[in-house]
Amino acid sequence: MTRNILVVEKILSANDRIAAENRAIFDASGIKAFNLMASPGAGKTSLIEQTIKRLLPTLNLAVIDGDIATNIDADRAAAAGAIAVQINTGGECHLDAIMINSALKQMNLQDIEVIIVENVGNLVCPASFQLGTHKSVLIASIPEGDDKPYKYPGMYRGVDALVINKIDLLPYVPFNMEYFRKGVEILNPGLETFPLSCKTGEGLDSWIQWIKIHAQA
Amino acid sequence: MTRNILVVEKILSANDRIAAENRAIFDASGIKAFNLMASPGAGKTSLIEQTIKRLLPTLNLAVIDGDIATNIDADRAAAAGAIAVQINTGGECHLDAIMINSALKQMNLQDIEVIIVENVGNLVCPASFQLGTHKSVLIASIPEGDDKPYKYPGMYRGVDALVINKIDLLPYVPFNMEYFRKGVEILNPGLETFPLSCKTGEGLDSWIQWIKIHAQA
Repeated sequence: MTRNILVVEKILSANDRIAAENRAIFDASGIKAFNLMASPGAGKTSLIEQTIKRLLPTLNLAVIDGDIATNIDADRAAAAGAIAVQINTGGECHLDAIMINSALKQMNLQDIEVIIVENVGNLVCPASFQLGTHKSVLIASIPEGDDKPYKYPGMYRGVDALVINKIDLLPYVPFNMEYFRKGVEILNPGLETFPLSCKTGEGLDSWIQWIKIHAQA
Repeated sequence: MTRNILVVEKILSANDRIAAENRAIFDASGIKAFNLMASPGAGKTSLIEQTIKRLLPTLNLAVIDGDIATNIDADRAAAAGAIAVQINTGGECHLDAIMINSALKQMNLQDIEVIIVENVGNLVCPASFQLGTHKSVLIASIPEGDDKPYKYPGMYRGVDALVINKIDLLPYVPFNMEYFRKGVEILNPGLETFPLSCKTGEGLDSWIQWIKIHAQA
C-alpha cells in the first residue's frame, strides 16, 4: 500500500512539473488558458460552442478536447469555428499535463489568444491534475441535482468559477438552489457563479464577460 | 512508467481476488448482489428508493452506498426502509472489492436476500473494478445526452442491464434515442434496456420485474 502511495505521489509531482512548463508556454505565447471540468453531459461542449460563437469575432480561440474515445467534441468545436485538437485518453478518467503538453506541440500557438481545455467528463479525477491553465471552471447542471457540492467536494473546492447550466430545466426537476449554493459557499467562499442555459442563451452574457476579462488580464 | 503499470496490475489482481471472496460470501448467504453505476446525478439513489419501495414487501433488501463524501445516499436508502451502509471513499473515484468486503463485515447477512451496491457517481473508473456482485447495471440519464455510449465505451461494454432514466425530460432536451441505442448496440449487443422515469414512475414495472427475476435466480 505504501509503495502504491509513493508511486501516485511521484506521478502527481511529475505532472506538476509539466504543468509549470505548460504555463510557461502559455505565458510566452500570450495565451490565456481555461480548464473546463464537469460530469458527463453537464454541457461542456455546448458551453464551448456558445463561447466560440460569441468570442471568435474578437479573440482567436482554440479548444483542446479530452475524451475517453471519439472526436465528437473536437468536431463540434471545429464546426463552431475554433482550432480544435482532440486527445483520446484511452481509459484515463482525466487529462494530465503531459497530454496538454503534447497537444500544444501540434498547435500554431502564435495565432491563438485563448485556449479552452475540455476535460474528460468526470466529477472526481480531473480535480487532482493541474494542467498549467490559468483558470479552472466547473460546470454544474440542474438535472444532476442540488447535492453535488456536498458529494464531490474536491471538485468544487478547487475552481475559480462555477457555471450552473440547464437552468431552463428548473421547472421540470427537483432542485433547491439555496441548498446547492449553501454547499458551494462552504467549500469555496465567494466563488463567482454563472447560472445560464446554453439552450436558450439566458445568462450567457455574464459568463462571456467573465471569460473576456480573464482572457485579456 | 513500467513500474506504474505493474503496480496498477497488482492492485487490479488483488481486487479480483477479493471480489471472488465477496461472491463466495454472497452465495453462501443466499444473497443476490447488484452493482449500480452511473454519472453523478443520473438517478442511482432515486432508482434505489423506487426499487426498495416496490421490493421491500417481498424481499429483504440492503444497500451499500459509495460516495466521495457524506451519508446523503445511505440516509435516503434507510429512510426508504432498507438496511443501508455508507462507504466514504475519500478521494477514490470508484468502489473496490476491499471496501465491499469491509461493508459486508458490518452487516447481518442472514437477514438479507438482495444487496444493491450504489457505486461512486462516475462513468469511467467503476468499470475497471469488479466487486463480486452478480449483475452490473448502468443508469444513463436523458439530460446527459445521446452521445454517452460513444464517449464512455468501457462502461457501456461491461454491464448486464441499462436503465435509461428521466424519460419525462425527453420533451425538453435534445436526445436522439435511435442514435443512443445504436451506440449501445455496437458496444453491448442485445443488452436489456429499461427506459423509465423515477419521477413519474413510468417504465418502473419492467425494471422491477428484471431485478426480481435475477434476485431469485
